[in-house]
Amino acid sequence: MEDCIFCRIRKGEIPSEILYKDDDFMIIKDINPQAKIHLLAIPTKHVPYIDMLDDAGASLLGKIMHKVSKMQKQLGLTNGYRLIINQGEDGRQAVKHIHIHILGGERLSEF
Amino acid sequence: MEDCIFCRIRKGEIPSEILYKDDDFMIIKDINPQAKIHLLAIPTKHVPYIDMLDDAGASLLGKIMHKVSKMQKQLGLTNGYRLIINQGEDGRQAVKHIHIHILGGERLSEF
Repeated sequence: MEDCIFCRIRKGEIPSEILYKDDDFMIIKDINPQAKIHLLAIPTKHVPYIDMLDDAGASLLGKIMHKVSKMQKQLGLTNGYRLIINQGEDGRQAVKHIHIHILGGERLSEF
Repeated sequence: MEDCIFCRIRKGEIPSEILYKDDDFMIIKDINPQAKIHLLAIPTKHVPYIDMLDDAGASLLGKIMHKVSKMQKQLGLTNGYRLIINQGEDGRQAVKHIHIHILGGERLSEF
């Protein structure tokens, strides 16, 4: 999508600190951090909502979370973390391209 | 796991309002709701942490989220929702069996 900020970051059109990148997804820093560590794991393919994924995309979403979990130490998440996906208005989804918030680096509040 | 509350709910040993159940996972109401609607999607297989999943388990995690997203209307999530997975101490993971919080039914706070 030409006007999607995440797609533009992926293509290098908008600068961002990319911590990790492979064919399936990238990890960047959230520009408005809500915790000591606040990263975003963003699948490469532009899909706005989880219910629009096909089966392969759904599997990949889980695999990305799994990969993030395996990278927790190198991401500085030494004592646990929280994964969040916001969807739609009530969920306060800011960018209409599925992304996983990764929060940690401190003891998080209850929610 | 014999002493896992989610495994015991699954087996019917502890009463809970089960909204949905198939071979892969179940959806129950959170007993301490943090939003107008607060549900838990719980994979059947007892795995404490995401990084302990095998490839099939990782795929299944994404597929469960996908299925939940397809059920959003019937779950009362008419205008979006938020999915949260807490892991470890910093993430305030209360039960050491992977579970997905599903929050919605109202406009949620930023985090």
